[in-house]
Amino acid sequence: MHTGNPLPVGGGTPTHAEEHATLPSESIPTDYSVAVCQLAISVENPPQNRGRAREAIRDAAAKGANIVVLPELANTGYVFANHAELVSLAEQLDGPTITEWARLAAELNLVIVAGFAESENPNAPNAPSTSAPEAPTPRVFNSAAIIDPTGVRAVYRKAHLWNTEKDRLFTAGDGLPPVVDTQFGRIGAMICYDLEFPEWVRHTALAGADILCCPVNWPLFPRPEGERPAEIIRAQAAASTNRMFLAVADRVGTERGVDWVGGSVVLDADGFPATRIQLGIESIQLATLPIADARSKAISPHNDVHADRRTDLY
Amino acid sequence: MHTGNPLPVGGGTPTHAEEHATLPSESIPTDYSVAVCQLAISVENPPQNRGRAREAIRDAAAKGANIVVLPELANTGYVFANHAELVSLAEQLDGPTITEWARLAAELNLVIVAGFAESENPNAPNAPSTSAPEAPTPRVFNSAAIIDPTGVRAVYRKAHLWNTEKDRLFTAGDGLPPVVDTQFGRIGAMICYDLEFPEWVRHTALAGADILCCPVNWPLFPRPEGERPAEIIRAQAAASTNRMFLAVADRVGTERGVDWVGGSVVLDADGFPATRIQLGIESIQLATLPIADARSKAISPHNDVHADRRTDLY
Repeated sequence: MHTGNPLPVGGGTPTHAEEHATLPSESIPTDYSVAVCQLAISVENPPQNRGRAREAIRDAAAKGANIVVLPELANTGYVFANHAELVSLAEQLDGPTITEWARLAAELNLVIVAGFAESENPNAPNAPSTSAPEAPTPRVFNSAAIIDPTGVRAVYRKAHLWNTEKDRLFTAGDGLPPVVDTQFGRIGAMICYDLEFPEWVRHTALAGADILCCPVNWPLFPRPEGERPAEIIRAQAAASTNRMFLAVADRVGTERGVDWVGGSVVLDADGFPATRIQLGIESIQLATLPIADARSKAISPHNDVHADRRTDLY
Repeated sequence: MHTGNPLPVGGGTPTHAEEHATLPSESIPTDYSVAVCQLAISVENPPQNRGRAREAIRDAAAKGANIVVLPELANTGYVFANHAELVSLAEQLDGPTITEWARLAAELNLVIVAGFAESENPNAPNAPSTSAPEAPTPRVFNSAAIIDPTGVRAVYRKAHLWNTEKDRLFTAGDGLPPVVDTQFGRIGAMICYDLEFPEWVRHTALAGADILCCPVNWPLFPRPEGERPAEIIRAQAAASTNRMFLAVADRVGTERGVDWVGGSVVLDADGFPATRIQLGIESIQLATLPIADARSKAISPHNDVHADRRTDLY
């Protein structure tokens, strides 16, 4: 049990799932609407990024969203020239981006899960340790916040860094992925490459998450004609092997020569897409999910994807 | 390190990968051809099953296969009326099926990975323990053999039983999945539902398997129009998250009211199909795979799917 690196900002204290496989409490609706916002983001225009995120959150809310997922590094873009540029763009938790998201979550009565470049606050009372003490200072984390109407409930720092993120840009997080109890059930979060480690996904599922929200920036790689992007395939397997909903918000737009998949999708507990996949274009897609689907791990009269694990052997 | 339940029959002793991520030795070709044989099997005609398997192995060999994978329970079919019927069809390791496969592997100079219903030999010197002592006797295992020209190299007993297999039919195996060094590299095996547990797949990959061969009987479930069967999706993720080849041999034919996916496929190290997926019809499909692809776990200048695991956290 864990809460990532909880750093309450707008009120509220991080909590986590204490019990597995319980039925929804009376205060949780039987289903909810999840929006994944696929946005064009640019490292060269942070105010525009913030405005685009704001519009997307309002748009999703107008369409009835209860949970809104934004891409990885939604406040900054991704293709940083160097650590100095990243530092100039990153924000502490009391910066304008998180402050605005917390205000919107309260105003619109929804949960936001979104990625942002997080500057370490060296004065924080419990500044977490990291596995990369040699990283340049100030340290910056590739983070995701889970924000509900009471404020920031958890901040997760990406533990599995991708490619040049390791190259004197980001510091890897050392916290476990959070699972937060909200008015819309138990919500987990991790970021992009994290999702490719089944151990990390399993941890979140066993901690009781109904849905795993994943801000991502999936760089575009070649794939065989007619094949779905491999990142989506892996996300589908992550969902279905745990009967856990999964909501991926990817980005689009060419940034300093890098193209992106634009593979945002909400996956049902069987791992099938519940939203249209709109590769490569800006899009806000919503799906309505019955929470009970993610709380039954049964897949046959004799099988349960979690109970069937051979914990005597692994 | 482990060898499943090694029970040499045709000569040879089970071995396993002692080292990870080594280059191919001089004796291993740079690439090999893998055949997945999708066969119609019937619980009501075991001699026909054996004949069909023999034809498929010879056919695959004629097409140049170095490794041939047959479905789960290829000697018996799947939909047993009861334990007594299963017992009447199952064979010990010196029975006609394994004896024939060992002879064919030697004659045709190839590796066969195939599923069979294995009757326990109560006189075996090291009869393995099981996790289901209440199972009816004689105990029967849902097993897979890895057979090369020197004989049976390993026998694996399915550890994750599916649905009615648990219903006083099969006894679950307690051995780890084997990885066997052969003239065609390091070959792992597991069976059907086993593959849905990423922990089990990871174990095989970390033990050094270049290819994971999976005899399966995938029962047909509804899926959204246009979607690939979920079992194939999960197999693709299993391959790509480990950069390990995967060869699935499924079955077809309606058996006592049960239909099957017929989702046989060879997957490359990126998890993409290297063979045509021929849903629902008998088929033998081959793919040529460069072994080095599965021995490099690198996916970017800074990333390696195994080295990037956060073993400090899980």
